[in-house]
This record gives sequence, C-alpha cells and structure tokens, in this order.
Amino acid sequence: MRLLNLLVLGILSFCLAFPVWAGDQDLLSRARRYFEPLPEKPPALKGNPLNPYKIELGKMLYFDPRLSASHLISCNTCHNLSLAGVDIQETSTGHMWQRGPRNAPTVLNSVFNTAQFWDGRAKDLEEQAKGPVQASVEMSNTPERVVATLKSIPEYVELFRKAFPGEKDPVTFDNVAKAIEAFEATLLTPNSPFDRFLKGDLRALTAEEKEGLRLFMEKGCANCHNGINVGGGMYAPFGVVERPGADILPPGDKGRFAVTKTASDEYVFKVPSLRNIALTYPYFHSGKVWSLEDAVSIMGSAQLGADLSPEEVRKIVAFLKTLTGKQPEIVLPILPPSTDRTPRPILGKVK
Amino acid sequence: MRLLNLLVLGILSFCLAFPVWAGDQDLLSRARRYFEPLPEKPPALKGNPLNPYKIELGKMLYFDPRLSASHLISCNTCHNLSLAGVDIQETSTGHMWQRGPRNAPTVLNSVFNTAQFWDGRAKDLEEQAKGPVQASVEMSNTPERVVATLKSIPEYVELFRKAFPGEKDPVTFDNVAKAIEAFEATLLTPNSPFDRFLKGDLRALTAEEKEGLRLFMEKGCANCHNGINVGGGMYAPFGVVERPGADILPPGDKGRFAVTKTASDEYVFKVPSLRNIALTYPYFHSGKVWSLEDAVSIMGSAQLGADLSPEEVRKIVAFLKTLTGKQPEIVLPILPPSTDRTPRPILGKVK
Repeated sequence: MRLLNLLVLGILSFCLAFPVWAGDQDLLSRARRYFEPLPEKPPALKGNPLNPYKIELGKMLYFDPRLSASHLISCNTCHNLSLAGVDIQETSTGHMWQRGPRNAPTVLNSVFNTAQFWDGRAKDLEEQAKGPVQASVEMSNTPERVVATLKSIPEYVELFRKAFPGEKDPVTFDNVAKAIEAFEATLLTPNSPFDRFLKGDLRALTAEEKEGLRLFMEKGCANCHNGINVGGGMYAPFGVVERPGADILPPGDKGRFAVTKTASDEYVFKVPSLRNIALTYPYFHSGKVWSLEDAVSIMGSAQLGADLSPEEVRKIVAFLKTLTGKQPEIVLPILPPSTDRTPRPILGKVK
Repeated sequence: MRLLNLLVLGILSFCLAFPVWAGDQDLLSRARRYFEPLPEKPPALKGNPLNPYKIELGKMLYFDPRLSASHLISCNTCHNLSLAGVDIQETSTGHMWQRGPRNAPTVLNSVFNTAQFWDGRAKDLEEQAKGPVQASVEMSNTPERVVATLKSIPEYVELFRKAFPGEKDPVTFDNVAKAIEAFEATLLTPNSPFDRFLKGDLRALTAEEKEGLRLFMEKGCANCHNGINVGGGMYAPFGVVERPGADILPPGDKGRFAVTKTASDEYVFKVPSLRNIALTYPYFHSGKVWSLEDAVSIMGSAQLGADLSPEEVRKIVAFLKTLTGKQPEIVLPILPPSTDRTPRPILGKVK
C-alpha cells in the first residue's frame, strides 16, 4: 500500500516536472547552437607562445604608469581590473585630461574577440596594445621613449631576457606589446551562471533568467551576440532598422568606415561582447547610456525593429546578468625603481 | 698533536675576527639607541579598532576611483602600491590635471609617523584620508557626494555594516576615513636588511653599508631621522645651517608656518621617514631632487653644515638602500558596480 502511494507520488511528480525539464533541455539545446562556455585557460596566441615570465612581465607593464609620457597613466587606468576591465566613464580621459572619442571596451575575455577596438582596426591584442601607448589623447608616449625607459631599469631588462629567451635584444616595443597580450589573454571570467547552464547545469539559471535567454534568442539578439563571448565575433551597423539619435550615435564617429573607407561601413562597429555587461556600464561606443535596461531597449528598436515590453526588457536584463563571471584574482605587481637614466615624466604637450 | 694544532688555529681565528666582530657589536649597540626594527603587525589605532572587514573595506575604498569627483582618481593613484606608495612625480597631479603643491609622501609605514602630511597638519591617518578626497586640486569631491555614492551601492552598505558593527548608520565620511586608516595601517615593509641587523644579524649589512650606518649616526643624520621609521617623528626647518636655493625650497611654501602661524615654523617640515627611500624618488617636499646621492649631499650642507665627500655620500646611500623592506602583497580588490542612484562622474570644475 505504502509502496503504491510512493509510486503514484513519483509518477505524479515526474509528470508535473517533465514539461519544465523538457523545456529546459530544449532551451539548453538551442542555446548550445549559439553559445560556447568560456574556457578556464587562455588559448594559444599566434606568434606569441605563453610562458610564466612573459605573463608576469606583461602584468607589470600593464600596471606600470611609466609606459605613458606623464608616468601617470597605465593600461589599468582605463582598463581597471578592479572595475571589470573598464573605467566606468562615457569616454576615457588621458594625457592632459583630454577626452578620448570612444568608450573603453573591457579587456576581460577580449582575447576571444575577432579583432580589437570598436572599429576592429587591430587584428589582435598585441597590435591593440601599441595604440593607446602612442595615442596623443591617451598615454601620449613614443615607442622609443618606452624602450629607453624599460632599458634604463635593470630588473626589466632581466625579465625581458627571461620572457623572450634566445633573443639578442629582447627589450623592443614589439615585445612590450607581446608581453601585454600574454597577460591580457589570462584575464578570463569563467564559471558564470550562464556558463554553468551551458555545461549542463539546468538549475544554474532561474526561471526568469531562462525566459530572458529564450527571448534573447527568439528576438534575434543572439544573431549578432553569440559565440564564446556572446558578441565580439562580427561587425554590424548601429541602427540596422532605426538609427538612434545623435546623442547616442554621434554623427562624427562613422566607426569602421574610418578603417575600410567603404561606404557600407558607415556607422558599423564591432558587436561588443556581453560578458560581464552588468559591470561594464556605461554602454555603446559613445558611452551615453548608463542603464542596462535602456541599452537593451535601444538595441531592440535600433537593431531588431522590436518594441520590447518592459517585462521583456527585465527578463533579458536578468539573463544578461548571468554573464557575470568570476573576476580574475590579481596580485598587484611590485614595479622596479627608475634609475638616473630613466626619462623623466612629461606632463605637458609631448610633441 | 693534531688537537693542539686545532686549538692554535682556533685561537688565531678568534684573535683575527674579534676586532671586526667587536666593531660590529658596538655599531649595533649604538644603532639600537637611535632605531627600532619595523614591527610585522600594525599597531592599535586610537579610537579605531581593527577588524578584517574594516581592513578589506578600507582596501576597496583605497582603490576605488569613485571617491573622486571624476571617478578617475583613487588613493592608489598618488600612493601607488606598485610604486612603494608614491607616484614618482615631483608633485601630484589631480582633478583636471591640476598640479598639487607638494610631493606625495609614501603611505608605507606611515602609521608610525608622529603626524601626517609634510606640515603635520593631520594628527593621524584617519584625519589625513579626508584631505585629498576634498582638495580641489586632488580628488575634488565632497563628503556628501562620497557618502551618497557609497550608499547607492548595496555591497558597500553591507560591508560598512560588518566593518562597524552596532552602528545605526555606518556609511559616514568619518567611517570612510577610519576604514582607509585601518587598511593603511597594514601597509608595512618589515624585514629589510637594516631590520635584520637591528635584530642582531650582524651579517645582514655589508661592510660598506655598515660604514654608511656609522656615518649616518656620526654626521648627525640620525638626530632627526631616527625611531621605527628612521624619521617621521619630529619637525625641522629645511636649511638649519644653510638654506638651499629656491629651485629646491620654493619660497612660496613656508611649511608648518601655515599650520601654526608661528614665525619660528617658517620652512619647517616634518622630517620624512627614510624607509624605502631608494624607491620613493623624487625627494623633498618640492620633489625637485631625483637622485638619492644629491639628496644626501644637500641634506649634509643644508642641515648639518657638513660637506660630505663623494665617498661618504656613496656609503650613506648604500646604508639607505638597506631600508628597503618587503613590499606588502596586495590582492587587487574587485569593486561592486554602481547603480542608477550613483552620482555620475564630474570631469569639469566641481563647484
């Protein structure tokens, strides 16, 4: 009798749970067609084999403000690893308090992007690293001064030797960029709730988050924001359906057009990764939108021609928050002191 | 016969080594009258009991640029823990790229200074922490905006509750300063070669470094630079014997006179700690001197009326380098995200 009761109860539970479970399995199958979990380890870098010395050197360079003319600005100033690899500013502030033209993209997981910068003008992180160091509105330095600075510091020379074994003159601007790329490749945020879901843990997302994921795929968001980085893999015009106002899409910045000089690339930008998006406000290349709800709503109308309801927006945002992963644990590097040969900081105009 | 040989050899060795050993013992005894080894643990803070939550909260606040109006400048900007707690600038650069009037003193071991700032106008680190946050040329913020910022971030509110248990409204500007003081009190650099010597390891210093220590005491440097921090314990006029040029001692900055309004305090400054001095260039309140050799030489003529020979300077510098201790190992804090209620950054003039 008791056994029979249990059996009935079991069958009942199964029947009640089955549609949910089957729905979740189906959601997971669909999600796996779009997305991949974030790896725990960095991928191999083309022409830049990783080794522990190179990663440590890259970390030191990443935090060293002496890469800038003023000795005040480091990579970490605009890609702050306490703040999910961004500077939580509309656009970045650089040398002499000048404002840059675009919002700083996060360095986290950026190794999985198809190219770097909002317009994809750098093919990888090595090429990217050389940009801000030289940009007059950012670090405003020259490759020559960077190399002279590093060569004036014996501890750096020694570390370059270990990081680039067998090279005769390892302290070069190319190797500075390679070391920074090596460190940046380790800046991954695995094990987000969404990653756990993708790996098969159906309880890693709440019902609302699952609804958000479903909407994210059904409404078309995932057509551009997909792959390992939930974005970062392709280019798209901002305003496929409806161009947003000049406050959000300043007419002076034509995006990828400046790189390719192709008319069809006007207002085309790299689709940004949405990993850790809840932490990397404000949004878009202009940094003009501070709330994730607003950003989702604007994307709906501008890219999909979809007037998302407040409830739909709320669910999609709930899903997007599951893309926040474990932030990298960084022990602050101790930087070796300058010497009498180290070029002094320049606080005024450089050239 | 063999035993006798050994005995003779032993006695001979002892006779040869004894004068050196006795000289070292004497040097150590004299040094112990001036100096104390740096403790490994922070001291108790008056009215600010330490607890792990408070120290962790203080670390987060120390690294959080949202304590500044621009959201660009944190305590760590000018007291960079990758750079021995300084910014390796003549004087600091703050809000809108304005230059402050004095060289940033190191935060390392500063809990053992008798007072804070070059003119000693803050009695402790709690009082000190409130200064730069509000100074218009530094972080240019207001206590109200700091508190509003922190109260807008639930994770901070929770941490303040844990750090200040039993307080009804723990998110206050006073508690911000208390938490920062608690963290800063942990920023110690023990176990320098000189500390090991003071603790009795006679081989912790080389012959040249010992010569430097001897000169440091005999020439009179140790009359002001003494105690745990080899300085930081008293005030002295810059130019006791001979006032240096206006390039090094700008006539506009009368030091402690601005605090006490006492004529005898003109050009009086706090004697800085010399711990980690090899890392905290450039030197003096004006930051005008970049080489430690030059700084020692200037101190000789200005403070002691002593024309130190290049050899004496070299030996004293060799000794000063033994004051570099183990730098604190800091795991970069991960800062909680802003919310819609968080005040936005202000990049222009604040008031």
